[in-house]
Amino acid sequence: MTDNYTVTPWEVKGNIDYDKLIKEFGVSKIDEALQKRIMKHTGEMHRFLRRNIFFAHRDMKFILDEYEKGNKFFLYTGRAPSGNTHLGHLVPWIFTKWLQDKFDVELWFQFPDEEKFLFKENMTFDDVDKYLYENMLDVIALGFDPKKTHFIIDTKHAGLMYREACKVAKRITFSTTRSAFGFTNENNIGSIFYTAMQAVPAFLPSIIRKKKMPCLIPHAIDQDPHFRVSRDVIPKIGFYKPASIQCRFLPGLGGMSEDGKMSSSSGDSATIFTTDNAKTVKNKINKYAFSGGQATIEEHRKIGGNPDVDVSYQWLTFFEEDDAKLVDIYRKYKSGEILSGELKKILIDKLNAFLESHQIKREEARKNVDDFIYREGK
Amino acid sequence: MTDNYTVTPWEVKGNIDYDKLIKEFGVSKIDEALQKRIMKHTGEMHRFLRRNIFFAHRDMKFILDEYEKGNKFFLYTGRAPSGNTHLGHLVPWIFTKWLQDKFDVELWFQFPDEEKFLFKENMTFDDVDKYLYENMLDVIALGFDPKKTHFIIDTKHAGLMYREACKVAKRITFSTTRSAFGFTNENNIGSIFYTAMQAVPAFLPSIIRKKKMPCLIPHAIDQDPHFRVSRDVIPKIGFYKPASIQCRFLPGLGGMSEDGKMSSSSGDSATIFTTDNAKTVKNKINKYAFSGGQATIEEHRKIGGNPDVDVSYQWLTFFEEDDAKLVDIYRKYKSGEILSGELKKILIDKLNAFLESHQIKREEARKNVDDFIYREGK
Repeated sequence: MTDNYTVTPWEVKGNIDYDKLIKEFGVSKIDEALQKRIMKHTGEMHRFLRRNIFFAHRDMKFILDEYEKGNKFFLYTGRAPSGNTHLGHLVPWIFTKWLQDKFDVELWFQFPDEEKFLFKENMTFDDVDKYLYENMLDVIALGFDPKKTHFIIDTKHAGLMYREACKVAKRITFSTTRSAFGFTNENNIGSIFYTAMQAVPAFLPSIIRKKKMPCLIPHAIDQDPHFRVSRDVIPKIGFYKPASIQCRFLPGLGGMSEDGKMSSSSGDSATIFTTDNAKTVKNKINKYAFSGGQATIEEHRKIGGNPDVDVSYQWLTFFEEDDAKLVDIYRKYKSGEILSGELKKILIDKLNAFLESHQIKREEARKNVDDFIYREGK
Repeated sequence: MTDNYTVTPWEVKGNIDYDKLIKEFGVSKIDEALQKRIMKHTGEMHRFLRRNIFFAHRDMKFILDEYEKGNKFFLYTGRAPSGNTHLGHLVPWIFTKWLQDKFDVELWFQFPDEEKFLFKENMTFDDVDKYLYENMLDVIALGFDPKKTHFIIDTKHAGLMYREACKVAKRITFSTTRSAFGFTNENNIGSIFYTAMQAVPAFLPSIIRKKKMPCLIPHAIDQDPHFRVSRDVIPKIGFYKPASIQCRFLPGLGGMSEDGKMSSSSGDSATIFTTDNAKTVKNKINKYAFSGGQATIEEHRKIGGNPDVDVSYQWLTFFEEDDAKLVDIYRKYKSGEILSGELKKILIDKLNAFLESHQIKREEARKNVDDFIYREGK
């Protein structure tokens, strides 16, 4: 690839050109008309839509057509446990929660606990089990309704999933996975099979609910290759082609040019975990958040900062709900009225306010995990 | 391959040279010393051992060493449902039943209901489910003790198996399956993964029983490539390398030179099913069983028949328990004293006597299927 970025389900790096990615992946841009059509049903536009954080889709029009005909979709998203949850992980989940509330639909949340075990040499199932539990707490803490939200854990629910995965797998050759994922002959046979398991929650609810339902998958754009493959197969086994709505990555603290996706595996310092305390958040932002400011205060007051590369400002575009406030911060930082340290403080306060409340809900979630895990009759 | 035969888990054909196969596969011949050592524990020698129908093994000495130290093994065999049961299928099961009785050990019987679905283009799960049930009846009819015999059905028990299969799969590359099974890039990803599922029952009982136990797999020699692969992996994940004891194929009615294995997929006429009635058995043997006799009665009386290529005689080596009777038949057919039709009648009577009783037990088995299917606590 001649681009200086990589976006695959297993590696995201470089300075991602999202417009180019739309063409490469063959997804569609979310335009104003589509935003408005969504708003017709939701009554408001989530900041992730307004700010093009959710920027691309496949077949959203089909989802809305069916919804308008009275044929409700279900939501499917997921998390492959491989580390503690960081703020970047929350982005699609926060949006999924909003979709669930506004459209009043069921969510099937997959935890493919075998994925990282199969793809990471040193990952054990003991590691995965620990992270699985921690990750579930974060999902629950976001306030999902347990009556409408069902956790599917691949190895636990394999009795439901494996047979369905075989139906998908029968229609995917090794050649297809080579071109979709760049696999080689040295890939292990579990990693080769895995994409079939990721396809299952896109139609399993139609089997469980005994009703053919459209599926909408909110997800970060790197997962698109899985669904590109499964969208070809799923209609052939009798279900709707799943639709998707896709987001950008929360940049790593080190700056967008180094790592487009905030990855918890590239060192704890590059990320904010949902369990970080206020002091840690303060220290990490102050120490690591790439700054768009000038070298000296004098220069900054004179020239102004660059919010477009400043990670603290970019993070505020994800976490500050109020558009007016955000515009004000942008203007003041660009003019030099706000210093980098002050901008960082705005972000630190915003994140710590969010995390204080999130961490309380996260502790409460320990009591409710079983209510979310799918079981027959749920 | 320059040999005029093929033996893989998916295809068996040609005139198999079993001595050559021992070298190619790297298995060991069962010699007299080993036969006697087995007999020390069993008190008798099964006709399949005496007649070298079970002719090869891997690590039988380890199994007996451990057994003599008081460390009992468990048995593992299986059947991939893809058609009705024929008499060839019963051969390893009959021997397995004998081993279970003599050594007083548990048997884990795998029904990999996804295997033929994945490997056969036109096979559906509806087909497989039907055959699964029919095949289970035949296993039960052989008289296995439900307290010591546990059926494991892959898609049903995937909640137990898939996680373990991933542990195996992580250590098998696509390259390995290419060389073991001859896979190409056009194989589907389910078929590529499948061998990991076949490995699981070789160590799952040690997990369920919370005790590291040796595993002995009685099976037809064509399944050896699966266990060759899994024997490398299983010790690395903390269990004993499974041992095996391997049998030849009951030849097809058309003769050994055409098809070494009696295959139910090469036309109903080549096989005797466990559900065939007495008249069908008589007609099939009379019409299709390849004869070693001469063209005319006169010639036959003068030259004699050739029992070594006569399928009816070969089948009697599998189904006639009495050595003295068998020697007598051999001598009389070779001398021309018995005509081909008479030899066929001996076989027809033998098979029909067996099937009459088997079919009664098979009907009774319908009531007991649930007692055999593994569930927690069984």
